[in-house]
Amino acid sequence: MRFSKTFVKTLRTAPKDETARSASYLIRAGFVHKEMAGVYDFLPFGLKVMENIKNIIREELNAIGAEELQMTALQNPEPWQKSERWDSEKVDIWFKTELSSGGELGLAPTHEEPITNMMRTYIKSYKDLPAYVYQFQTKFRNELRAKSGIMRTREFLMKDLYSFTTDEKTHNTFYHQVENAYKRIYERVGLGDCTYQTFASGGIFSKFSHEFQTIIPVGEDTVYYNKDRSIVLNEEVVIPEVLDEFKVKKEDLESTRAAEVGNIFTLRYKYSEPLDLKFTDSDGEQKTVFMGCYGIGVSRVMGVIAEKFADDKGLVWPESIAPFKYYLVGIGENGVKAAEEIYAKDPDNILFDDRDLRPGEKFADSELIGIPYRIVISDKTLAENKAEITSRKDGKTELIDIDKILDN
Amino acid sequence: MRFSKTFVKTLRTAPKDETARSASYLIRAGFVHKEMAGVYDFLPFGLKVMENIKNIIREELNAIGAEELQMTALQNPEPWQKSERWDSEKVDIWFKTELSSGGELGLAPTHEEPITNMMRTYIKSYKDLPAYVYQFQTKFRNELRAKSGIMRTREFLMKDLYSFTTDEKTHNTFYHQVENAYKRIYERVGLGDCTYQTFASGGIFSKFSHEFQTIIPVGEDTVYYNKDRSIVLNEEVVIPEVLDEFKVKKEDLESTRAAEVGNIFTLRYKYSEPLDLKFTDSDGEQKTVFMGCYGIGVSRVMGVIAEKFADDKGLVWPESIAPFKYYLVGIGENGVKAAEEIYAKDPDNILFDDRDLRPGEKFADSELIGIPYRIVISDKTLAENKAEITSRKDGKTELIDIDKILDN
Repeated sequence: MRFSKTFVKTLRTAPKDETARSASYLIRAGFVHKEMAGVYDFLPFGLKVMENIKNIIREELNAIGAEELQMTALQNPEPWQKSERWDSEKVDIWFKTELSSGGELGLAPTHEEPITNMMRTYIKSYKDLPAYVYQFQTKFRNELRAKSGIMRTREFLMKDLYSFTTDEKTHNTFYHQVENAYKRIYERVGLGDCTYQTFASGGIFSKFSHEFQTIIPVGEDTVYYNKDRSIVLNEEVVIPEVLDEFKVKKEDLESTRAAEVGNIFTLRYKYSEPLDLKFTDSDGEQKTVFMGCYGIGVSRVMGVIAEKFADDKGLVWPESIAPFKYYLVGIGENGVKAAEEIYAKDPDNILFDDRDLRPGEKFADSELIGIPYRIVISDKTLAENKAEITSRKDGKTELIDIDKILDN
Repeated sequence: MRFSKTFVKTLRTAPKDETARSASYLIRAGFVHKEMAGVYDFLPFGLKVMENIKNIIREELNAIGAEELQMTALQNPEPWQKSERWDSEKVDIWFKTELSSGGELGLAPTHEEPITNMMRTYIKSYKDLPAYVYQFQTKFRNELRAKSGIMRTREFLMKDLYSFTTDEKTHNTFYHQVENAYKRIYERVGLGDCTYQTFASGGIFSKFSHEFQTIIPVGEDTVYYNKDRSIVLNEEVVIPEVLDEFKVKKEDLESTRAAEVGNIFTLRYKYSEPLDLKFTDSDGEQKTVFMGCYGIGVSRVMGVIAEKFADDKGLVWPESIAPFKYYLVGIGENGVKAAEEIYAKDPDNILFDDRDLRPGEKFADSELIGIPYRIVISDKTLAENKAEITSRKDGKTELIDIDKILDN
């Protein structure tokens, strides 16, 4: 797109209360706009990044046979009362509201209860199982303190997947498929080599759950790992029993800060039992459905990526999720003319900085916004029939034939 | 997709409180699930229809230079207080909630205030105008009575577009472009020949606003039209002054029930004035930004389409927004084998009913779900190397060569 056509401008400053570097850059580069603490609008560039992440997640989940649907934000108390999660004393992040016709409602902080309740309509027999469903849905969490920019917010986009199976064995097979899908997702969004599947507390129903943690200095969590990183433990499970089980000693583990970017959880009968989600098995018996849930905070992942790769000049987006692949600048009359020709070849992948600004200002914006490749065309490069291409990631510059500039 | 792979099942009955035919069918056919009055989940088929409608809208709005973004549901009172729309006595459809850290918040019933407020960051000069931005966003409206299924709900998906211009003249040009874009949208979703642009009350700032009304017996509104339907008026403007202006007499107008499927509105300075959205014009003067807003209730449009075309057997989707183009049934061993071959050619566009059910049940489901074309293959059709194709819309059946069955 042409930069002159978007209303978005880069800003010199971000709100003073933004302590996270990523949040400051995301605001200054025009990806998000802050409504209030923990509540952010997604502007066109930011929405593109979010959609790119969503599409990668969608492809990987569809590939393992999950179906997309969309639940609602407004929540009836009833199913949550059954699972004992309605009471704000017990679950302290509820936003509650009232129907004008009478009755309390909640804004969904997660969706185990309504989805388990809904499945009672569709799951009757073992023939109706397994069922794997997911959604991209806005969650609302009444955090006392919102912080870290879009990494921990009060309103955020989450991908939540739920599995419904006849038994633990079928569950385990799918759980393992999700583990692999998640690994592919983190790989594809650019977090592959700094994200580890960790063991976390399983609560009272399973020995462990799994989290995916990205190593990052500003992470809220601490993880412990052995030398080859084959064992990575969340802090809460670094206790004698667990260390014994993994046959490691605490002194052999190193620790680092990390940010949770996903979790997968064997729920067993935690929700299906109180919400009475049963099926008739092939032997004619009534049994309770075995469940799992699997989350990825999409806007949170975007924040972690922003934080992870940013440098002192601004954001650095991995190519797979960048809003555009190229940032195009023409210098001088001939440079601009040649840039127009390049732009016409692939306008969707190019952010063409056709604004009436000095080249230096454009270069600074291209670095702040973090588009993977900057292309510059000027009389100097045209003399050789070439254009200059600079990688945002490592700053390396090459001169390439104009005809081949979009080939890499 | 294979019908055996979705958790969705058609249902024999819908909740008794659903009076709208479309709602009953949408629930029975597995497009939506009712959480409570006026709050519906979108199941996989329903989500596909919604996405198809969204994509048509998106293409038409992008084509007139509008940019997509996404605002938040949670609302700070401040901008709404400035425009005097925060008070629940004045705006009676607010859902309000409380921050655990203190302070009242609202759930956005619309977005004029936050978007006008946000634009103060980006619009400073006449050079920053015009700006045209839109979103697909969940709106929350605390309706005393929710009714008509997904046509009037408490939580719904809306496309809202806002225009910001230096003056009325630029505004009028864009307003006209939106009129045309809306006409193309209704045409493309299948409502073209029963949807009219009507004159509606303009409030205190304009003589008229425009609505788009679809003629439909269960519509909540009444519209009046002249013989050639060149003048279509909402009931509230059928008053002597207006009739004089259009040079028509009331007795020459006919009336009919209609459902509003869109509205476009010249806001002038209604929000930019109280929210102080100003720009420096080319003459150096500070001026107030001229605004317009343009809405389409996406889930409402889906409901109107469902209602409009349904017959006594179920839903009838226009091809452009149907979740699948074909519903495929193989009868007998050879029929199923041949159906598998057809399915493999275009699995995304085919709902292959591979369930272990009698053909009659599959035919009934194909009619209830309303897929545009049903393809049936059996020994009888295979004897002629053909398949039977039946149009859901008019019931017409043809025998077509198997190789060409997906060509129409």
